[in-house]
Amino acid sequence: MNTWKSIIKESDFSLQNLPFGIFSSNRRQPRVGVALGDEIIDLAALHDIGLLGDLEIKKSVLINSSLNDFIGLGRKATTKVRSILQQHLNYPKSELKDYPSLFVQQSNAKMHLPVKIGDYTDFYSSIDHARNVGKLFRDPKNALLPNWRHLPVAYHGRSSSIIVSGEDIIRPKGQLKQDENLSPVFGPTQRLDFELEMGFIIGKDSQMGSSITTAEAEDYIFGLVLVNDWSARDIQKWEYIPLGPFLGKNFATSISPWVIPLESLEPFRANGPKQAPAVLPYLQYKGKRSFDISLEVAIEAEGGEEEILCQVNFKSMYWNMSQQLAHHTINGCPVRVGDLMASGTISGKTRKTMGSLLEITQGGNKPIKLSNGTSRAFLQDYDKVIMRGKCAKKELRVGFGEVRGKILPANLF
Amino acid sequence: MNTWKSIIKESDFSLQNLPFGIFSSNRRQPRVGVALGDEIIDLAALHDIGLLGDLEIKKSVLINSSLNDFIGLGRKATTKVRSILQQHLNYPKSELKDYPSLFVQQSNAKMHLPVKIGDYTDFYSSIDHARNVGKLFRDPKNALLPNWRHLPVAYHGRSSSIIVSGEDIIRPKGQLKQDENLSPVFGPTQRLDFELEMGFIIGKDSQMGSSITTAEAEDYIFGLVLVNDWSARDIQKWEYIPLGPFLGKNFATSISPWVIPLESLEPFRANGPKQAPAVLPYLQYKGKRSFDISLEVAIEAEGGEEEILCQVNFKSMYWNMSQQLAHHTINGCPVRVGDLMASGTISGKTRKTMGSLLEITQGGNKPIKLSNGTSRAFLQDYDKVIMRGKCAKKELRVGFGEVRGKILPANLF
Repeated sequence: MNTWKSIIKESDFSLQNLPFGIFSSNRRQPRVGVALGDEIIDLAALHDIGLLGDLEIKKSVLINSSLNDFIGLGRKATTKVRSILQQHLNYPKSELKDYPSLFVQQSNAKMHLPVKIGDYTDFYSSIDHARNVGKLFRDPKNALLPNWRHLPVAYHGRSSSIIVSGEDIIRPKGQLKQDENLSPVFGPTQRLDFELEMGFIIGKDSQMGSSITTAEAEDYIFGLVLVNDWSARDIQKWEYIPLGPFLGKNFATSISPWVIPLESLEPFRANGPKQAPAVLPYLQYKGKRSFDISLEVAIEAEGGEEEILCQVNFKSMYWNMSQQLAHHTINGCPVRVGDLMASGTISGKTRKTMGSLLEITQGGNKPIKLSNGTSRAFLQDYDKVIMRGKCAKKELRVGFGEVRGKILPANLF
Repeated sequence: MNTWKSIIKESDFSLQNLPFGIFSSNRRQPRVGVALGDEIIDLAALHDIGLLGDLEIKKSVLINSSLNDFIGLGRKATTKVRSILQQHLNYPKSELKDYPSLFVQQSNAKMHLPVKIGDYTDFYSSIDHARNVGKLFRDPKNALLPNWRHLPVAYHGRSSSIIVSGEDIIRPKGQLKQDENLSPVFGPTQRLDFELEMGFIIGKDSQMGSSITTAEAEDYIFGLVLVNDWSARDIQKWEYIPLGPFLGKNFATSISPWVIPLESLEPFRANGPKQAPAVLPYLQYKGKRSFDISLEVAIEAEGGEEEILCQVNFKSMYWNMSQQLAHHTINGCPVRVGDLMASGTISGKTRKTMGSLLEITQGGNKPIKLSNGTSRAFLQDYDKVIMRGKCAKKELRVGFGEVRGKILPANLF
């Protein structure tokens, strides 16, 4: 589908995409916007000129510091907004052309955290990641734990420290156990890492005590974002037995600002890996529930240039989002609009497809060389990490933009 | 301190206590109330007659479905509300006597979840509980894990399934591994349990990247509630390695409706256990940071009577709330008004002081007899579990009311 707007062919934000986010600018307080090429369409301004038709959306839903109320209108309404935009942007004589103030340059806007996240769940759904980590920490011959192929393992993360792309990460401090035989010491983490993940945003509330089936799961998925689940490996290692990761993770999680609606991804559906042994009936599903999304991680050291560390595809995940949601609610746990569910680190088998430094450097033992001559076992202060995602099929492009973050030195006190 | 209101001497809700909660009644939409004896003082009504003085509290803070905005006014304001109430209720000629509609019988009111909980953290801070469980699951000679005495172990729980006392619990379903050598099966949990815990509610936001010291920690604690952290032991056992408890816990957590302000508990400060080895400097503290609160758990089988299963004191906890908060934020993780931090199961060494059936029945191996002739390894459908807490010192009483919940059969589908 074409548009009279001039958008480069490779743009992440095509007419097929139309992702939603929260932006502000000098003259505009935080509000719902839609990315298109290098611009943002101001939905509140569109509402002002009466172009949201008979949707009867309250303006307070659009001039809002989160997408939650907008998402809460339901898929019928949000899909309608997309199709109104697609029609107008495709029609050469559209009246939108008369209203240049509907459009804001992305370079003049500030992006905000797109949703108010009630609960954040992090899965562990890449089989190669689970194997890579299992080999490092446990028996290399039995890298996968016994439950791994039977259920999508997950744990609860922290909502309060989820930030939007571009916000800096302060190196966390904590207890480090540097030697098996010594007492723990206190200090800044020496093993700061990234984790390449995808996340999905819940689009519909479920009821406590009821479960979402795999057949209906996608009705509850509003859209997807990129996630960098920053990790402090030394803090995590000392604390995580028996109740799981805590301070090693909850100092910061970054997400990309644009939520890519599930419907934008329709052309990129894919089959997931075969699951064996067969999963229990509540985890079985029909159809293509994986998505062909090319992902990459780049690092940019201070004064250096961006270098790609990892390229991997989201469709490689063993457990898909429908299964994750069916599992999460099988015990009656309710989900709410705005909840974030992340995939867990996305990795392949080979070094250049691994989504964390822990894996790439084999636990820090095989540092990587950067082009500026320095090397990295883990992240150093002022390193920037940038993650990107993109779907492509013939002429069709749907991109995720990026999630980026820079490491700042630990606070002294 | 006495009041002209007639309150029985043993009432949980004395003039010293004055806990805050959210209630509604036939004629009153959800709003902030203060418990006193068998009644509730309607703060919005108090506001209407001008008795909240020069506090300039907006009425929308008081007619509200959560305490968050009220707590967010800050301790100075909430303490002032308490002292206005104490003065008026102590003064025999108080004008409050002219306004009977300020008072609502608790029996005519419905209590709501008192706070909107952003993040819920569950600690594991009772040394006897950690030992009791360690002996059941791991090496009895090394029941405590190596990190346990160095840091207050914790994990993130789920906010969306936190409910107020009185709401029923639907028996959760999930994957159960009944035999080491067999595949997991699907069904309702066979090992449903309670966990006796205390929780505290955060009263002040902290900034991301900064830490709360033990010296300032109590400024961030608004008040305390009773917590029943319902657990499905079979689901938990199969899922929890390596990322911790998930579906075994997140189907339901019940809290008591009245938040007991920290200042009500001043007379009941106590010393905690000696900690050895010495903890790292950021976990060291001065003064009495534990609280002398007598706790009990009762069970009431269908058609039976209440029977006490456990009596234990909160002051036995190895890690206190100030240490928990200092640890939680040492890595820069932010806390927000309304967050819930629970203690973990509170247990002693002996059978009658254990805060879960897992411990009381030694993993289900030694069922308890109930007076109606039936026995329990774990909870059965229609069992009610009731937890209570009380501080007493000479004539002074501060009680927590109760948290209760009844088990309903699993949903079939």
